[in-house]
Amino acid sequence: MSKAIVLTSGGLDSATVLAIAHADGKSCFSLSVDYGQRHRSELVAAERVSRQYGDVLHRMVALDLSLFSGSALTDSSVAVPTAPTEGVPVTYVPARNTIFLSLALGWAEVVGAQEIYIGANAVDYSGYPDCRPEFITAFDALSGLATKAGIEGDPIRVQAPIINMTKAEIICLGTELGVDYGLTVSCYQADTDGAACGKCDSCRLRHEGFVMAGLDDPTHYVSA
Amino acid sequence: MSKAIVLTSGGLDSATVLAIAHADGKSCFSLSVDYGQRHRSELVAAERVSRQYGDVLHRMVALDLSLFSGSALTDSSVAVPTAPTEGVPVTYVPARNTIFLSLALGWAEVVGAQEIYIGANAVDYSGYPDCRPEFITAFDALSGLATKAGIEGDPIRVQAPIINMTKAEIICLGTELGVDYGLTVSCYQADTDGAACGKCDSCRLRHEGFVMAGLDDPTHYVSA
Repeated sequence: MSKAIVLTSGGLDSATVLAIAHADGKSCFSLSVDYGQRHRSELVAAERVSRQYGDVLHRMVALDLSLFSGSALTDSSVAVPTAPTEGVPVTYVPARNTIFLSLALGWAEVVGAQEIYIGANAVDYSGYPDCRPEFITAFDALSGLATKAGIEGDPIRVQAPIINMTKAEIICLGTELGVDYGLTVSCYQADTDGAACGKCDSCRLRHEGFVMAGLDDPTHYVSA
Repeated sequence: MSKAIVLTSGGLDSATVLAIAHADGKSCFSLSVDYGQRHRSELVAAERVSRQYGDVLHRMVALDLSLFSGSALTDSSVAVPTAPTEGVPVTYVPARNTIFLSLALGWAEVVGAQEIYIGANAVDYSGYPDCRPEFITAFDALSGLATKAGIEGDPIRVQAPIINMTKAEIICLGTELGVDYGLTVSCYQADTDGAACGKCDSCRLRHEGFVMAGLDDPTHYVSA
């Protein structure tokens, strides 16, 4: 049984990717990073989502990113925007997916995993540079050179199966695969119980996805 | 004044690279990673080396890599070899330079640094895959795609100025630049005061470097 690291954030996209890897018959190692994010309840969601499968090992890596001030996701003095903004938004965390993929690469080498699955998406997304296909391709190339597995001729490959899908397509596929989106938290400023604000970019993209998919939105909103 | 992140481990190579960046007129931001390494005194050395310059900002990022069992540098149940071994040695920490460069990339973006300096070396080294020129080139390519700075046309570049130098050449250059190697700790199992074992791969390479350079070895050894 082929092993895969799956980067899980507790959100909708990574829950779908975990379901895809699991349905593909991979032995899944779910990895979440506690980087001091504002939306702590997503880490609880990541564990909940991983645990619903009896055979997925979930681990959390603690990384102190307080050095990275200025992002609305790590710096409590920066407000989360509740309306669309121009360019790369302040919720951008510098080099986040590079850091997450690096950690996944290390763990992959330790457990002997051949693949890393990431829920990056470049369609209904916030415009982060490290969610684009060319970034994933460049990290995949790096992976072949970065590790012992790579120089021994068996590089760890990066899979981004939902990168070109719309949010509605992601939701439809996940629903087919049995994902319970009520367990997931996407909101950038979810409260401690995981209730969503319904106003931030992430909430907006998520809700529109359920509407376009013609499915009920199971999100628990603060105002509901 | 152009800003640069310099990855400093407390060892000989990164102390030389910090001196090179400083001599190049860069405003240096020195970054060390506390990843639970066995040789904790290298972190003290990294701070000492950085502080000798009055104008270098030194920061430490804490990252819990206890997940990465099996390396002699992070797992106290694995002994540090005291004789040369075949292939990639057990002191290899999976994806370490990928993780370090990712963290440097994030900090570079936060402070507006244009460059990252790393003391990777592929001549007198332990055979780690992530010390080779092709790895550095691949990370540099990734950097152009991974960040906001990159997509805005001003990518953060990776500099590895000693990658093709012998240990003796590194020592000669650093000595010219005024590096006090007595402040540095290279040993994989240095004691809490930074005294070196004199037996591990890192000690062996370092000592041979001073001999080849025709310079006194200022290392403080346990047995001395």
